[in-house]
Amino acid sequence: MISVPDSSMSAIDDAVRAAMSKLACRALPRGASALALIDAATRAAAGGKRFRPALVVAAFEAFGGDADSTPGLWDVAAAFELLHTAFVIHDDLIDRDTERRGEPNVGGTFRARARAHGIDEPEAGRIGDAAAVLAGDILLYEATRLVAMADVPAAVRSALFSLLDDAVLVSALGELADVEQAMTPDEPDTAHLLSTAHDKTAVYSFCAPLAAGAALAGADEGDRALLIAAGADLGLAFQLVDDLIGTFGDEKQAGRISGADLREAKRTPLIALARDSAAWPQVSTALALAPTGPVAIQAAQRELDASGARERLVTLIGHTLGSVRRRIAELPDPPRTLIEDITTAIEGRIP
Amino acid sequence: MISVPDSSMSAIDDAVRAAMSKLACRALPRGASALALIDAATRAAAGGKRFRPALVVAAFEAFGGDADSTPGLWDVAAAFELLHTAFVIHDDLIDRDTERRGEPNVGGTFRARARAHGIDEPEAGRIGDAAAVLAGDILLYEATRLVAMADVPAAVRSALFSLLDDAVLVSALGELADVEQAMTPDEPDTAHLLSTAHDKTAVYSFCAPLAAGAALAGADEGDRALLIAAGADLGLAFQLVDDLIGTFGDEKQAGRISGADLREAKRTPLIALARDSAAWPQVSTALALAPTGPVAIQAAQRELDASGARERLVTLIGHTLGSVRRRIAELPDPPRTLIEDITTAIEGRIP
Repeated sequence: MISVPDSSMSAIDDAVRAAMSKLACRALPRGASALALIDAATRAAAGGKRFRPALVVAAFEAFGGDADSTPGLWDVAAAFELLHTAFVIHDDLIDRDTERRGEPNVGGTFRARARAHGIDEPEAGRIGDAAAVLAGDILLYEATRLVAMADVPAAVRSALFSLLDDAVLVSALGELADVEQAMTPDEPDTAHLLSTAHDKTAVYSFCAPLAAGAALAGADEGDRALLIAAGADLGLAFQLVDDLIGTFGDEKQAGRISGADLREAKRTPLIALARDSAAWPQVSTALALAPTGPVAIQAAQRELDASGARERLVTLIGHTLGSVRRRIAELPDPPRTLIEDITTAIEGRIP
Repeated sequence: MISVPDSSMSAIDDAVRAAMSKLACRALPRGASALALIDAATRAAAGGKRFRPALVVAAFEAFGGDADSTPGLWDVAAAFELLHTAFVIHDDLIDRDTERRGEPNVGGTFRARARAHGIDEPEAGRIGDAAAVLAGDILLYEATRLVAMADVPAAVRSALFSLLDDAVLVSALGELADVEQAMTPDEPDTAHLLSTAHDKTAVYSFCAPLAAGAALAGADEGDRALLIAAGADLGLAFQLVDDLIGTFGDEKQAGRISGADLREAKRTPLIALARDSAAWPQVSTALALAPTGPVAIQAAQRELDASGARERLVTLIGHTLGSVRRRIAELPDPPRTLIEDITTAIEGRIP
């Protein structure tokens, strides 16, 4: 979605690895379980696309930042990866998922480890849950301390913490809303689903990394505010495109079976839009059958398409990205081009 | 256990309240659930004895710190209360507890709230768990950011983060060990139980608050290292006395039924010491019956006493506190008197 030089991606990886290695060294004298916890957390933090750190670095470079004279850059970038990893670990716990990308996650690893030590269910599950709670806590703390101790001027640290404050609080509240909306007997309306989609992702994945990179490069408050506003729209659009991919994307694009969101009966803004359409009775019947198999998923995809909900969501994404383009007209270049490129990349993912 | 002027206790309360009020203001526009989460977290952070912040302030004053010229003091003190609250919320989640001090905790509050909104079990339980994960995350972050943004010199902030690093990592690893030891088929040995007792509590409750107060007052590294070493012994002794109270203390001292640890069949160092005694067959039989009622609990108390385990644990506590007294001989006064007073207070709690 954004292109960052290989040398920068290596520097990000190095900073993530350095933080995790230090944790492993400190855990080492505390026994096998301690080391296994840091090891599981390290694996959770490895292999991602480093999307958020890359945004930090891209914004930093777009605002003319000089990496050689900003030693704190890589720690701040790495902090966003560890923050993301902490959220992923705690989200998996909340969703009762024991795998991620086909591999056991932190909870799954410790559950299997407990079983191997002769511990039965449900105790093994409780140990898995404990490991997930604690690994997430360690990474959330580590992300925050990386920013706190990054070698940056006091004013920049203060700006970074304003961003982190929102990244943590808004994401946590968005996650809570997401869980509640999945389980409430009343069907949540489109407006609530949209605000939850924003809160869960936009602030910590777009607004905060972009504005953090800008702050590190010395961008003024006005430009940072523009980035935060643009990031809110980018994050919402990104999430809505993700919903489209989870519903209509093919296996290759979705990275899982086509229509996985339909199989899981996820309550997305797309479904809420269909509910507002005249075709809801047919859609509703098709959705109820979708979890039964691939043929029923295809039927639900057709009905959602025919209801006009897909088109309405694409229009909404278009409006949201249009708002990004209007906002950034005031930004200087190259930051404007950076945001324009991200906007185009999100548009290009629409299935 | 320690006496801190009322005005200091008020200042600590004010700092905790200020942090939670700011969170509530920021959550307000995000709806009823968001506000309910901060409200539940605020109640979790209220009403405690403020033991850790009081240690920060007592150490600060003992080292001649001047509160008027150290504006960051109260935020750092409050941070230790929020860190403690975050740990308590996540410990309750791990232990599947939905109450604390007879009131619904964060998870219990959200479980009840979900039921009131027509959500059945187990979904209500999952919402309760999500709320506990997220409230703990918010408080853990808030504690860390309070220290990061406290108005203190850079060298002091760096010293504070070294302490927090250990407080978070060692406590998390201690909690993991505690959960695993409670569930493993093999009975854990005394050495492991003692190191877990230390790790779970000593660093974040004694070492870090004492050394943080000293660092804020400008104490040198040698004195801070002495406090950390003394804190490790104080914390272990405190935890062992707590085990004695949970086993032998009367209802008034324990704040719950006498012998509650026996009813819950907790694996404590006391039990491990009894296992090493010749009387273990009798103790073991009595312990197996203890969960059945008060008469069986009394019988288990008698057998534990007769096995010599109680006396051996009291001796161990005496050695541990003796080691504190030896260590602090090198400390200047009044810090030495402060630690001496804490040592005496812990000794005085032995039932």
